[in-house]
This record gives sequence, structure tokens and C-alpha cells, in this order.
Amino acid sequence: MKVHDLDTPALVLDLDVLERNIQGMAARCDELGIALRPHTKTHKIPEIAHMQVAAGARGINCQKLGEAEVMARAGLRDIMITYNIVGPTKVGRLIELARWANMMVTADSDAVVEGISHQAGHAGCTIRVLVELDTGGQRTGVQSPQDALALGRRIMDLPGLSLQGIMTYPSMTRAKPFLDETLALFGENGLPTNIISGGGTGHEAISKELGCTETRSGSYIYEGLSRISKREDLDPARCPLSVLATVVSVPTADRIIIDGGQKTFRARPTNPYGLIVEHPEAVIYGMSVEHGHVDVSGCNHRFRVGEKLSVIPQHAGMTSNLHDEVAGVRDGQVEAIWAIRGRGRVR
Amino acid sequence: MKVHDLDTPALVLDLDVLERNIQGMAARCDELGIALRPHTKTHKIPEIAHMQVAAGARGINCQKLGEAEVMARAGLRDIMITYNIVGPTKVGRLIELARWANMMVTADSDAVVEGISHQAGHAGCTIRVLVELDTGGQRTGVQSPQDALALGRRIMDLPGLSLQGIMTYPSMTRAKPFLDETLALFGENGLPTNIISGGGTGHEAISKELGCTETRSGSYIYEGLSRISKREDLDPARCPLSVLATVVSVPTADRIIIDGGQKTFRARPTNPYGLIVEHPEAVIYGMSVEHGHVDVSGCNHRFRVGEKLSVIPQHAGMTSNLHDEVAGVRDGQVEAIWAIRGRGRVR
Repeated sequence: MKVHDLDTPALVLDLDVLERNIQGMAARCDELGIALRPHTKTHKIPEIAHMQVAAGARGINCQKLGEAEVMARAGLRDIMITYNIVGPTKVGRLIELARWANMMVTADSDAVVEGISHQAGHAGCTIRVLVELDTGGQRTGVQSPQDALALGRRIMDLPGLSLQGIMTYPSMTRAKPFLDETLALFGENGLPTNIISGGGTGHEAISKELGCTETRSGSYIYEGLSRISKREDLDPARCPLSVLATVVSVPTADRIIIDGGQKTFRARPTNPYGLIVEHPEAVIYGMSVEHGHVDVSGCNHRFRVGEKLSVIPQHAGMTSNLHDEVAGVRDGQVEAIWAIRGRGRVR
Repeated sequence: MKVHDLDTPALVLDLDVLERNIQGMAARCDELGIALRPHTKTHKIPEIAHMQVAAGARGINCQKLGEAEVMARAGLRDIMITYNIVGPTKVGRLIELARWANMMVTADSDAVVEGISHQAGHAGCTIRVLVELDTGGQRTGVQSPQDALALGRRIMDLPGLSLQGIMTYPSMTRAKPFLDETLALFGENGLPTNIISGGGTGHEAISKELGCTETRSGSYIYEGLSRISKREDLDPARCPLSVLATVVSVPTADRIIIDGGQKTFRARPTNPYGLIVEHPEAVIYGMSVEHGHVDVSGCNHRFRVGEKLSVIPQHAGMTSNLHDEVAGVRDGQVEAIWAIRGRGRVR
């Protein structure tokens, strides 16, 4: 089947570019001497996670327990969840997962580690844990090296847990004092720092400088080796994900309407929404729920109803999250249809 | 099962409020003397569509063919799709649907109606069609009364199509000249105007004044009888949809983090993200992909990890679109789990 025979809107993934991004990041991490644990929240597709591991990744990272379940069922065996797992239902699922995958979690409070320990201890299994540091993300994470030490000690004391080190987000130069002091305290007090986890795409070198042993880079699979920041970055040679859309209306000479809007594309709050590959001079200037509004006043091409266009979305990871499947293509031919199995696994 | 026993994040729907909104809009349309054809893109749940029809709606409206298929399979029998159906694959599905549901579509070009007619004529079925007018939405729709007449005539001439009238979006007072002139032209030329379709929530009276015979109001089921425009509108007495979330971190005295972010909630580009029902003085000031960031500096309550909170999202319809199911509750008890069957049916 040819790509243009797909009904629209369809999520399409160029496998050559995807493979190049995967190999490129593997090579960069090798060169830097830092292990790669790709964050799979970007794609949520087990087939891609397997490609990343085959290229040398030491394991994977998930953001929600439900995503980890999907990956474990698909055969991934070294899984970190960088999320506080809270409540007996979720902890029970984590323990169940740990029976067949090597699980690791992050935590930032006694309440979280005590909840996990309680069930892990009873089940006779061991969950690996990293202490999460808030190194400027102002999200989760302990607030000081002293708090990190206290939580690390608590983890050491509790049954069913195995302290492995620390996790930092984000990996910025300004995080160095916090990180250094925590590592010193851990060292002085005999706490392990086997794993020092940093992230993400574009921060690999800084993570290495900070002393991280692994990077949780994720968006590189859809964005290449640095983050997308402007419309010029939306280049088919580095961005494998696109949406095949159809022109459903040409109401005026200046405007066409395509069959994907806010429920097909996810943009950051600011323009641009994406790049129309065949007509870079066209500007997607707005989106209603199911329609994309395109200004074609700068195009010489005369658009017609029924014409199909490839749109590279401005925010590939969030766009992918709106869809149930993606067509993997090579040289214009559909090679695979992959289910986005982790989509919607918010629990 | 009690609501607070649901694992989080969970989409929750207060059935008493939902029913009140459904009855309220039915009563308002009765009073105005305008038929109600609810737009189901807001909820995408066949069970709710049936409740709307039972309350007097003349049929339903869908925005995509895939949504209409879901509704038809669930027994809905009068379905309008306010979308240009383009391409042989989609037209084939429309014809198939027309074998067991009474289908109506809108169109704004010869290309669209010719594509539908081609297959409908061959199949020996009849598809009802409305001419869509662009009355200020600057999206789809013909641009002038003369264009509406020309397209109406084309529809009359083509086999397999039955012209029913016109559709306008949006229903604003400024649309009156366009609408009046189109109706006059249709009348003078013997074209039918059995259906004059307007929309949506909050515009019922204007639609009636404009001469519309039906209103495609949709968001009222989650927002009440007028649109949500500010945080103060997020009132549990009118907004039945909420997200049950868990506090997963209390990193500082001023900040808590809940287990839902951009993949659980969909906000308009501007704040606020939603209202925490139990603590209205708390402010959700940011969202990362899977975390909600809440400023609790204005709260006397001391939050703890594991605590569950109800959040009314600022954009209920778009939030619902991120989830696979919703728990229908009454008096704190879970009464039903409904699949959001139309979610992801972008084709």
C-alpha cells in the first residue's frame, strides 16, 4: 500500500528517518560515555522501544505505570518509571510488574517509599529506587541535599526496596552544586550512587558533565538530536512523524481547510501548528476542533478538494498521543501499522 | 463502588447534573420553538446521545464519519455529519451507514457533492444534504448567497442526493443578511429549506431569530446553558465532568503536584486549567505532560501525598477526548462506566 492510499487524517512515520535518529542518539551517547535510557512517553510504541534497546539503550523509561505495563507485556525487561507511585492499587500493579520485569522507580517522599515497601516486603520482591532531586524543575523532587540523604537512608532501612542512586530533572549546569553536595553526602554516609539519572534530548553533554551515568532522552526519536524550537526546525530529514491530511474545502483563493484540527494535531500554545511539506510557503494559522485553517496566499499552487498533504506537527509527541495507530513507511510504501499502545494509559 | 475508590486520574461524570443540563436545554429549545440536534462531538458517548434523544432531540450531529459510525452502531438513527465527506473510502463508508441510519451531511463545493452522488447513485440510496454557508466562521462554507444557490441547484440535479436546506456556522446576528438572501434565492428558485441548521450552546435564541429550524448545541451537557468563559463558571452545580486526581508530591509548603497533566487535562492556551472543588483557593498554575502543578499558598488545608481531589477541567470536551472511559456517578457512588467510543475517530 502506498502512503497516499491511506485514508486521512493518518499519522505517518518515516522509518528511515526514525532509524537514523535512533542510531544518531546511540552514537552520541557512546561518544560521550553516558548510558541511554530512552524516555518512551514520546512514542508509547513497544516496537520503537525494542529498536532503541537493540541500538544499545540499557533499558527504557516510562512516565506512568500503565505505560510500563504495556512495555513489559511487549517484552521490555528493564523499565524505570520516573513517577511517584502512590496508593495501594498502583503499588499492587507495580509489584505484579516486578515479577517479570526489572523495575525501578523514583520517589521524593517517605510516604511514597513506605507505600511501595509495605507491599514489596510482603510480596518478597525488591523494587529499585532513585531519590528524585528538584534541581530547578519546580515540580516533584526533594528540595535539598539533606532531604535527599534523609530519604535515601529511609529507603535503605525499608524492606523490599533497593536504593540505586539519584535522579535529577532537569539537567542544567545550575544543578551542579545540589548534585555535587548530594553525591558527597551519599558517599560519606555509605549510600549507593550506582545510577545518576539525567535528561533529556539536547542535554546529554551537560548530563555527562554533571556526572550522570545515564540520560533519559526521549523526544530525539521524533525531533532529532536537539529540540524543535522554531518552524525552520520542522525538516522532513530530521522529523519522521507527519500527519497525512486531505484538503476538504477551498472556500477562497487564499484559504484551504484540511481534515485535521485540535483533535488530530497538538500544538504548543503558540503558532506555528506545523509545516506542510509539499508547500512550505503555506501557513497553518488556526485550528478548530476538527479542521485545520491554512493561509495559501503565498502559494502559486492551486489547491483542490481531495488533495492530500503531509504535515509535520509542531509537537510530535503530544500529537502522537491523540492517535491510536501510526503507519510506518519507507520510500512511500506502508511497511507496518503500529498501535500506539501506551496512549491513554494515564493511570 | 465509591467515587473515591476509583484509581486516578479518572474521568468522573455527575449524572444528576448531566441529566439536569440535558433537561434544561430540551426545555429551553421547546420554549423557543426550535428543534434540538445536539452536537455529540462534545461527549462522543452513545449512552449520552440516547439520553438526549429521549429528552426530545430530533437526532444527533457528529463532526467526523467515524463518530457517526459509532453512534449508528449504538442505535442512533438520525445522524447529521457537519463535515465535507471527501474521497471514495469515506464516501463508501457513508453509503454503508445510510443503509441503516438516516444520514444527512453538509457540503460547500461541487467536488464534495459530486463525490457523494457518484456512489450514492450507484448504490441506489439517498443522502440528505445541506448547503453550508460561511457566515463569519471563516472556515468551510460557501462565500455568498449566489454560491449557495448554485451549489443547491447542483445538488438538486445529482442522483442519490436530497437537498434539505442550509446550515450556518456560527449563528450570529451579523449572519442575517447572508441567511435572508440565501433563503430568498432558494424560495424564488424552488429549492427546499426544510432544514435551516444553526448552532450552538448559548446561541439558541439567536438561531431562532435568524429563522433556524434546529440548533446544533453540544457543549451544554458539560457546561450548562451558556459557555464557560471564566474560572468562576467552573461550578459543580452546572459542570458534571471532573477529573479525580491524587496528590503525588508535596515538595514545598506552597506547592502540591497532582497525577494529571497535559495528557489528562486539556486547557485552552490560557489559564486557568481548572477548579479544585474541595479547595477553590488552590490555583493550578501549570501542567507538564503528566503532572499538574498547584499553588496552595492560599489554602489553610495541609495537603498530604495520597489525598484525592476533584478537578473541574476548564475545557471539558477536549479533556474528555483524552480519555477512553468515564465513570458515571450519583451521590458519590459509581453507577456506570461508559466507554468514550467516539474518541480518536478522526477519520
